[in-house]
Amino acid sequence: MATINDIAAKLGISKSTVSKGLNNATDISEEMRKKILETAVELGYVNKRLQKKEKKLCILVENMEYSTPNQFGHDIVLGFKQMAEPDGWTVDIIPITINFQKLTPYGVFMMQNGYQASYILGLSLLDPWMQEFRITKIPTVLYDNYIKENPYIASVGCDSQEGFELAVRHLMNLGHKKIGLISGPLDSYILKARYNAYINALYKYGLEVNENYIGLGYYISESTRKYIPKLLEQGVTAILFSHDVRAISAITECDDRNIRIPEDLSIIGFDDLPMTTYTAPPLTTIRQDRIALGKCGFYALSCLLNHVAIGSILLRATLVVRDSTGPTPNGSGRMRTET
Amino acid sequence: MATINDIAAKLGISKSTVSKGLNNATDISEEMRKKILETAVELGYVNKRLQKKEKKLCILVENMEYSTPNQFGHDIVLGFKQMAEPDGWTVDIIPITINFQKLTPYGVFMMQNGYQASYILGLSLLDPWMQEFRITKIPTVLYDNYIKENPYIASVGCDSQEGFELAVRHLMNLGHKKIGLISGPLDSYILKARYNAYINALYKYGLEVNENYIGLGYYISESTRKYIPKLLEQGVTAILFSHDVRAISAITECDDRNIRIPEDLSIIGFDDLPMTTYTAPPLTTIRQDRIALGKCGFYALSCLLNHVAIGSILLRATLVVRDSTGPTPNGSGRMRTET
Repeated sequence: MATINDIAAKLGISKSTVSKGLNNATDISEEMRKKILETAVELGYVNKRLQKKEKKLCILVENMEYSTPNQFGHDIVLGFKQMAEPDGWTVDIIPITINFQKLTPYGVFMMQNGYQASYILGLSLLDPWMQEFRITKIPTVLYDNYIKENPYIASVGCDSQEGFELAVRHLMNLGHKKIGLISGPLDSYILKARYNAYINALYKYGLEVNENYIGLGYYISESTRKYIPKLLEQGVTAILFSHDVRAISAITECDDRNIRIPEDLSIIGFDDLPMTTYTAPPLTTIRQDRIALGKCGFYALSCLLNHVAIGSILLRATLVVRDSTGPTPNGSGRMRTET
Repeated sequence: MATINDIAAKLGISKSTVSKGLNNATDISEEMRKKILETAVELGYVNKRLQKKEKKLCILVENMEYSTPNQFGHDIVLGFKQMAEPDGWTVDIIPITINFQKLTPYGVFMMQNGYQASYILGLSLLDPWMQEFRITKIPTVLYDNYIKENPYIASVGCDSQEGFELAVRHLMNLGHKKIGLISGPLDSYILKARYNAYINALYKYGLEVNENYIGLGYYISESTRKYIPKLLEQGVTAILFSHDVRAISAITECDDRNIRIPEDLSIIGFDDLPMTTYTAPPLTTIRQDRIALGKCGFYALSCLLNHVAIGSILLRATLVVRDSTGPTPNGSGRMRTET
């Protein structure tokens, strides 16, 4: 473990200057302070005084809404706090942007604010801090993201494989054989995981794996518009979606095209967003228990804070069957607009 | 949640008899007591009085030694207790056999002894209780085993995929291209997982996947004797083993055959058993941190006891490089006994 001496030696400055930098004294320059903090992070220095004083955690959020109960992040934050606060932790919720990440290294941000560990929601593989996570020594838990081989980082998420197996089995029991996938592009950890889960689930149940049954696109309504007719032409009778928002867009699209759900096409989402109960028809979907995702984020952090180097915790997925899935249409399963 | 009334109604007996059965009273027959307990388990009855009285957990062990520090299970038990006991739990360690499982259903055993939850080490897919785990409602964590879709069961283990990727990358950096696997038969969850991890790691690094590089056999020294020469004939220059005990048997076998490790053949084990430091040469192996396996067994149980339905926790694997791996032999990599 690095000491104040090590930082002083590395920068060629006095111990007292280092101490000022670490403890937010105002009589040194901001530039020097930043240099000291960055060196402290680089050397793996732990500010014990700050840590002993208060137990502080943060949830860092990007690209995810969490302020009202019907937003995806709300219950994750709530579940995390439900575990952390009774255990004596203060939890701050902080939205972060790519620009913020570019300006302030993760380690410096954490040290400046006296956070011992963080739970991170919503970052993509392209976020600047993802590079730093490979080498950070700050206990850090990522939701739906994964960093290899760093014992200070763990991953928390819902078991996509279990979820898609439940979905495919449900559809098979309804007679479906050609099952498609519409998803975002495979540039995020979780979209890759769901894509693989879809392929593996089809293999597992002996169903046809066919690239023409798959549509990947960044823009939600654009890719729905493009791929729903394309997949139906291929004889697909049921489609899995990487996220509920895509399945909900499919409901609108099918309505416009006079494709009946589930009579002509069965669809299944992923997430169980609060609004999926209110769509017409209500959406069959794979449920992520968001309160549990928050709680197990805290359990994962507890492991890391206790030097138990876990790589991942996967939460069980469950299938919530509503009305957007039904028996295969008679005959070929092709699009029928003649009703 | 079932009540004493439900049990009484189902069996057509009085509430007071049910109560006697549940609380180990001696004035009812053993047969009636067993019937009451089994019905209680079937209906999901929770004996709150017992649970409130004391916080009791058990570690159930089969096929694993744990009494002395050099045995595999010792540190797992220790790590578990290190987390559980300061948290106010009593932890009993109980060896179980297949016969014992046949005589007493898991739920009955747990209820009779007042255990709220258990951590289970060493069971195979064939153990009688594995069937019951599919439907049990008792929080149960399995080491190196997995039960699908039951929210009361979680799995804990070391990330075989991460481990074998580290091993294969290490061997590639030493020049190896043909890497074999010697493993037990694929009749256990963990052996299947390691087999898949081996295949995936080869694919990932663009190495040849060839069934002739793989030897699976139940008896350790028999399969070592059979497969080492066979794999060497195929030009394999490095072999991964599913467990250290198999790698250690390979050291003996190679010694007998005058095959030098690592000059003629590099070998890598899995587990980092205490004795691997003392083999000649000391064994390069994938480390399972057994203290951490114990601790995260407790974390997993804590999740389940708090109704956080996790499916699995995977611990990071690390590669411990000792002397049983070295650069590829010059030339074809075939067996050279002429040294």
